[in-house]
Formats: sequence, structure tokens, C-alpha cells
Amino acid sequence: MAASALQSLAFEHLVTATKQVPHKRIVRVTGELAKCMGSNGLMAGQAADMSSEGTSSESLDHVKWIHLHKTAALLEGSAVMGAVSGGANDEDIEKLRNFARCIGLMFQVVDDVLDVIKCSEDLGKTSGKDLVSDKATFPKLIGIERSKEYAMDLNREAQEMLQGFDSVKAAPLIALANYIAYRSA
Amino acid sequence: MAASALQSLAFEHLVTATKQVPHKRIVRVTGELAKCMGSNGLMAGQAADMSSEGTSSESLDHVKWIHLHKTAALLEGSAVMGAVSGGANDEDIEKLRNFARCIGLMFQVVDDVLDVIKCSEDLGKTSGKDLVSDKATFPKLIGIERSKEYAMDLNREAQEMLQGFDSVKAAPLIALANYIAYRSA
Repeated sequence: MAASALQSLAFEHLVTATKQVPHKRIVRVTGELAKCMGSNGLMAGQAADMSSEGTSSESLDHVKWIHLHKTAALLEGSAVMGAVSGGANDEDIEKLRNFARCIGLMFQVVDDVLDVIKCSEDLGKTSGKDLVSDKATFPKLIGIERSKEYAMDLNREAQEMLQGFDSVKAAPLIALANYIAYRSA
Repeated sequence: MAASALQSLAFEHLVTATKQVPHKRIVRVTGELAKCMGSNGLMAGQAADMSSEGTSSESLDHVKWIHLHKTAALLEGSAVMGAVSGGANDEDIEKLRNFARCIGLMFQVVDDVLDVIKCSEDLGKTSGKDLVSDKATFPKLIGIERSKEYAMDLNREAQEMLQGFDSVKAAPLIALANYIAYRSA
């Protein structure tokens, strides 16, 4: 019930506290917020994730799908809501949407990799492969090296989406992408 | 999780499927929807109701507060959202808000009364007083006759709010109020 109350509060805050943004944009932003949370967004990813626990034979595509919904959707919503509020054109909005999807997915790949490395270091083993749970993870599905490469690919793709934007304005987004890519904890 | 997904869907539907309504009104309607569901509306009433179960010594004011939030808030939201969408002025919006609060509260009073009468009939007892649960209800707090009178007062107050509106347009609302007041099941 607290979750439901907080969810309402998010929408209430959005439509009552947003100043100096045209109503047309607020309506569109509200739709983006609802979409990224709902049954085609976070909730879908969380439900799929919970129902696939214990089935480590999941395909890579399915794991990507889970994380694009469970993790990346809220980043996507955040980026797109900012872009729409600021009056970006549709092309730029889609670039920022893709940027956010890439860093969202990358966050999860890096998280999986760090989990293996950390377990491995903590327990003094050379491979973390046997330490991952029965949940499908990127290292388990494609190995740790290819997972690291995949994260770097996602970082490259994310930053390509920012080409053409004012470099000063894009700098914090680039820094965020690199922070997610290179974090060690 | 299904509840959260459905809640998002309500907002998504509101902002994407509403046609021929100015964006300014859609923004205001979204705020009303959020408010009537959230921590100052339905959720608050439901939480208060659950936390007061087993405490039949609740005051009348507290029981009214619970039902104004748990039951009447969604009726209030429905009426106000329609009024705002249709372009009503603030004075008329507040009249419709009060109308909905009255019939929402009346719904609960009548529900409590019917519950006592039904239990009484089913079990062949002359008084239902001892049959009410340990939850505070209107009949328990003020007796069944005064509860019935209170329901009639609320129906009168609700319909007074509709005076001044086009009588043809107000007719369905009057019929709804009377239906709630005089239902027998």
C-alpha cells in the first residue's frame, strides 16, 4: 500500500509541481512516466525476473529483455522526461531514449560482472563461474570476458547517441555512462 | 505488483486516450486522479481502516474520516475529473466535489445499515446491534435509526449541490444519489 501511495505521489508531484513547462509537454511526460513504470516497463521486468528465478537456462535475449524493462526502463523514462520537458525534438528524444537504454542495460551487465569478481576475490577462487546463483546472469550466459566487452560496446553505443548534442550539455551524461562502465563497487 | 501496474495503466490511459480535451485540463485531471488515490485519499482511508480494525470504540468523526477517504475519495475524483474535463468553472467543480463526497459517505452509511438489517433478518433476531463485528460502524456508533436519518441528510445535501445545474444534465446524478440512498441490497 505504501508503494501505491508513493506511485500516486509521483504523478501528483509531476503535475502540480512542474512550473514553466507547457501543459502539452507535461501530459506527454506523464505518459512516459506511466509507461516506464507499468506493465510494459518496470513491472513487466520485475514480474519476468521473479518468475524466471531458478531457471538459469534462460536465453540471453530473455535476460536482456528483463533488464531492459526492470532496470533500463526507469533510466529511459528519466532521460525522456527531461528531454520532453526541455522541448527537445522527436529525433533528439529518441537518441536520449536509446542512450538511457544502453546505460541501463550496461548497469546490469557491469553489476553481474562485479558480482562474480567480488565473490571470486572474497573467497580466493580464480573463477566466479560456480559462485553465481541459479539466476541467469550475463557472465553465466556468455562468460565474464564477453560480458565486459558487451558492457564496453554498450558504453560506446550510448555515447554515440550523444554525438551532435552540445558537448558541454552532454558532458554530464558522458560522465554518467563512464561512471557506470568503470565503477568497481 | 498487479495493482501497481494497473495504477500506472490508469494514468497512461488518461493522458494518451483523452481526446479533444485541452492539455491544461488533462494536467489538472491527472492531479485529481493522483490525489484521490494517494496518501491523502483512498490509500489513507484504507490504511486507517485496517489499523483501526478491532477498535470498535472509534469516534464518529474518525469513522467519517475513514469513509470519506476510503470510499468517497474515488467518487469525488470521478465527479471532479468529469467536471474539469468538461470545462466546468471552479464553483461548479466544488459543488460536484461536495455532491460526490456526500453520496460516497452515504454509500457507506447505507451499507452499514443494510449489513445490520440483513444479519438481523437472516438470523431471525429483532436487533442487529449485537451482530456487528468489532469494527466501528455508523449503526454501532449512533444506532440504526439515526444512521438512516443521517443517510437521508446526506442525500438531501448531495442533491442541494446540484441545484442551479441544467435539470436534464443533473438527472442521472440525482438518480444515482437516490439509488444509493434507497437500495435494499
